Amino acid sequence: MTIYYVNGSYLSRAKALISVEDRGFNFSDGVYEVIGFTKQKLLNFKKHTLRLKRSLSGLKIAQPFKNFKSLELIILNLINLNYTEDGFIYLQITRGSAKRNHLFPNNVRPNVVIFTFSNKDLKNLLKGVSVGISEDIRWLRCDIKSISLLPNLLEKQKASNRGFYEIWQSRNNQITEGSTSNAFIINTKNVIFTHPANNLILGGVTRDCVISIAKSNGFLVKESSFTVNDIEKCKEAFLTSTTVGVLPVIKIDKCVVNKGKPGKITLEIMDLYNKFLKKQIK
Amino acid sequence: MTIYYVNGSYLSRAKALISVEDRGFNFSDGVYEVIGFTKQKLLNFKKHTLRLKRSLSGLKIAQPFKNFKSLELIILNLINLNYTEDGFIYLQITRGSAKRNHLFPNNVRPNVVIFTFSNKDLKNLLKGVSVGISEDIRWLRCDIKSISLLPNLLEKQKASNRGFYEIWQSRNNQITEGSTSNAFIINTKNVIFTHPANNLILGGVTRDCVISIAKSNGFLVKESSFTVNDIEKCKEAFLTSTTVGVLPVIKIDKCVVNKGKPGKITLEIMDLYNKFLKKQIK
Repeated sequence: MTIYYVNGSYLSRAKALISVEDRGFNFSDGVYEVIGFTKQKLLNFKKHTLRLKRSLSGLKIAQPFKNFKSLELIILNLINLNYTEDGFIYLQITRGSAKRNHLFPNNVRPNVVIFTFSNKDLKNLLKGVSVGISEDIRWLRCDIKSISLLPNLLEKQKASNRGFYEIWQSRNNQITEGSTSNAFIINTKNVIFTHPANNLILGGVTRDCVISIAKSNGFLVKESSFTVNDIEKCKEAFLTSTTVGVLPVIKIDKCVVNKGKPGKITLEIMDLYNKFLKKQIK
Repeated sequence: MTIYYVNGSYLSRAKALISVEDRGFNFSDGVYEVIGFTKQKLLNFKKHTLRLKRSLSGLKIAQPFKNFKSLELIILNLINLNYTEDGFIYLQITRGSAKRNHLFPNNVRPNVVIFTFSNKDLKNLLKGVSVGISEDIRWLRCDIKSISLLPNLLEKQKASNRGFYEIWQSRNNQITEGSTSNAFIINTKNVIFTHPANNLILGGVTRDCVISIAKSNGFLVKESSFTVNDIEKCKEAFLTSTTVGVLPVIKIDKCVVNKGKPGKITLEIMDLYNKFLKKQIK
């Protein structure tokens, strides 16, 4: 039986409920994080809590935990109750429940929901995925990790309808990011390109780790956006997210990348990233 | 005691709950309507259900009612259970509850939540309100009445922080609409201007009624966007929404409109709109 954490209680699925006046439910007035764990150890936990803090403060939602050590203990307890060794934590914090009114209510307590999940499809994806390209029509504060995700849903569904794993979004002819992941290409001079972390993308935790690992292993990384034209000439491509880590991209729209196989540098970065995660569980 | 409708049941507030895996709660994957009622009669009901149908079909969410007559009976029952004569209905439909995954799940039933509320502040507002101006940073499908409302919340809160009732949003120097209402100005030649109904605004039910009423009463209405420069030269201004109807706007940013008093044409349109609603409750 899966156990859910809701505002201090550990509950079965049927009892894991929230008020219909929760502002997340009515207005998407909340933030979230997805955190991986291996052997019951949380991965990149500090980076996730730092971003969570930024998201909460960006929306002026009160920090609902005494400190992040308290949150860590809650999560570890939940993982333990679910008898899971490896998987992911989904953590959602909304502003709270209040009579529906656009204005922020006073004196409400944030609602906190946490549950675990697994990603069983990962093995198939490691051979490489294909991505489509679509216009980025999202708002201009994509840097806030909010639950206002309808535009992302529509893009991910569009990807699936068109036979792709993911959609890379393009704004003014520059690729910003995927609907659920960050986008990278490697040019013929072995330079890795990805969109800079600004208001147009969510500065992913995995994205940041990969950039840092690649740099410290001698790769040249440019946080500079790339175009469809750059894609046509690229040597390799990959995408990153917490749930998939680093995935080779072997086809972008109609353009086959590296003869449809994961690139050499991509495989090296996947390996380096896995080692980086493994170090955290020792 | 307030009674809430949740998926077929009429419940007290404490029992009006939804799954933490509801896709509205996790992803803002849902739509809503706000419908006024007077003497227990629903106002502009047909127009609201037509828009609801468009919103549902825009997001490919299944229509959860046998037909809109069934929905009407549910709402009338709820109003009756709440012993309310006049007020508003909030109706929210989400795609349903499912394991969290961006892709649309198969075989889920939409979740339906309905509750009533009143707008006690209306009387004070009728003297005229002030609005601020801010950059429109929303996505490019504002025509879908979705619960992905975080950008609107932030603008409404900004209005309040700056001492305004509302924010009018400006995209490429053109006023699109308010964070919770549609925006109108009247120029010195008595022509009424409002942004055309396209993907940049929500085609409000009250907006559409007001345009139609104004036209049939001899006013010239142009569904054509206006700029801050046009505002500075305007004679009158007003805004519309279901919860406030037609409200005079007497100040826009630093610009006092019609010496800070509701304009003559605005008052006439308010009167015509009220008569139009009254006809529906006979």
